Amino acid sequence: MDLKHYLSERKIFVDQVLDQSLTVVNGPNFRVVQAMRYSLLGGGKRLRPILCLAAAEAVSGDAVQVMPVACALEMIHTYSLIHDDLPAMDNDDLRRGRPTCHKQFDEATAILAGDGLLTAAFFVLAEAAVQHPEQATAYAEITRLIAEASGYQGMVGGQMADLLAEGQPSTLDQVEAIHRLKTGALLKASVRAGAILGGGSPQQIEALTRYGEKFGLIFQITDDLLDVEGESGVMGKPTGMDAIRQKATYPGVLGIAAAKSQARDLVAGALSDLQPFGEFADPLRHLAQYLLIRRQ
Amino acid sequence: MDLKHYLSERKIFVDQVLDQSLTVVNGPNFRVVQAMRYSLLGGGKRLRPILCLAAAEAVSGDAVQVMPVACALEMIHTYSLIHDDLPAMDNDDLRRGRPTCHKQFDEATAILAGDGLLTAAFFVLAEAAVQHPEQATAYAEITRLIAEASGYQGMVGGQMADLLAEGQPSTLDQVEAIHRLKTGALLKASVRAGAILGGGSPQQIEALTRYGEKFGLIFQITDDLLDVEGESGVMGKPTGMDAIRQKATYPGVLGIAAAKSQARDLVAGALSDLQPFGEFADPLRHLAQYLLIRRQ
Repeated sequence: MDLKHYLSERKIFVDQVLDQSLTVVNGPNFRVVQAMRYSLLGGGKRLRPILCLAAAEAVSGDAVQVMPVACALEMIHTYSLIHDDLPAMDNDDLRRGRPTCHKQFDEATAILAGDGLLTAAFFVLAEAAVQHPEQATAYAEITRLIAEASGYQGMVGGQMADLLAEGQPSTLDQVEAIHRLKTGALLKASVRAGAILGGGSPQQIEALTRYGEKFGLIFQITDDLLDVEGESGVMGKPTGMDAIRQKATYPGVLGIAAAKSQARDLVAGALSDLQPFGEFADPLRHLAQYLLIRRQ
Repeated sequence: MDLKHYLSERKIFVDQVLDQSLTVVNGPNFRVVQAMRYSLLGGGKRLRPILCLAAAEAVSGDAVQVMPVACALEMIHTYSLIHDDLPAMDNDDLRRGRPTCHKQFDEATAILAGDGLLTAAFFVLAEAAVQHPEQATAYAEITRLIAEASGYQGMVGGQMADLLAEGQPSTLDQVEAIHRLKTGALLKASVRAGAILGGGSPQQIEALTRYGEKFGLIFQITDDLLDVEGESGVMGKPTGMDAIRQKATYPGVLGIAAAKSQARDLVAGALSDLQPFGEFADPLRHLAQYLLIRRQ
């Protein structure tokens, strides 16, 4: 399969649905919706939605049916970027090649835009459950899963730990614990949610969850490596920031060569998790391999 | 009935459940959970949970069953206070008689604590739906309702409008539009959610929703009046801030006497909405009347 074609096709599909999920009307909330749309629709690889769609397809599920979940995942991811970029957090000026939300608007608007996107994610999930009462219990399970992965038990907890670890010497265990929470939990939940709503068997859901967990780790290792070796122009944000901020990273504790080798081992493990799914899992296979060669 | 006794009994019940809903364990997320608990368990009238419980009782529903929804409402309210208090927003140092979250911890922790509470609210709702699959569709409806009332279509949109209106001359229509979104939407949703989960008939749900809408307006009018006439010591926060910030308020556009008279008229309307419910609605009746004489 042609992964580039697959990704670009999927990205267009996801972008369309995201665009429709949030319409601006002239009202007292105009500015915050504008800021939400600025960040949500301003590019991005749409990795979490695509993982969710690909996991549904791996269990022969319907990609269209999974779209509300895919949308919610991207809204949550975008909110986390807006808040992480704030001056009180990472204080970043550039994101996806454009000014960050608080630079384009202002801090108050950016805080509210993040809050609005996080809330909108749960609105979209609840709306889908209302529209499909026959799947209300599956949606309840998925909503719980996504809330757990995004909240203090997951992403929010990981961002806290990441900030506290700045400037501190870290061990591999600590780096892994932070990243499992900060990025791993939501990536894993993206795959698992797609597998559940796609109608996977319990064994299939567990196998895909193991894949998702490895995917999260590979993603973070390669993300850390890109910050060392990547090109700022391609990535749409400055590189070398982890070192400047003394962040806890994989290349920081393992060295570049060992970090790369660990990423390759994890990809091999992820591919073996996908073995029972045959060609239905081709997109997931290619996605894991793509992480090793990605440039952004 | 003795409202004071009712309120204090209910507050204890709500506080217990909130306390159990968020436990600290020693882990990388320790600090953010600590901050979430600091703000969530640091006092507060618990008005939204109590409204939700009282609405369930008005339709002969079971208060215990509604507790997860009551909890979620208080988590959302608390998150909104934490974020509204941030330097980039209202820049408040004092809340519920104690330092605000960013004063007690720091800005980054306060942003994350708010994010964590908002996400935890939806976790609690989803968890309840998973535990009670027979009510999964009711929970879907309630979750949608609460997300809509808290998001850009409600509270987040209202906070944006409130910030933009600072220093601008406002009309009564504008003040009402802002407050319907900023505080009215979630108060109304609290009542409606209790009525739905309590098993109210469509007519009962609509009547209680009308009550909830009026309650929201009365709450905001009396809140604005307290900022003019209240005692800072009793309220646990400074008064007179609306005038200093040139906020859009009811006494600001109507004058104090007319604002009070409008609040009284709305209470009369709210009582008439409750007429069909007999003594089951006594707590809701007393709650509306209490707003007129509250000191905090």
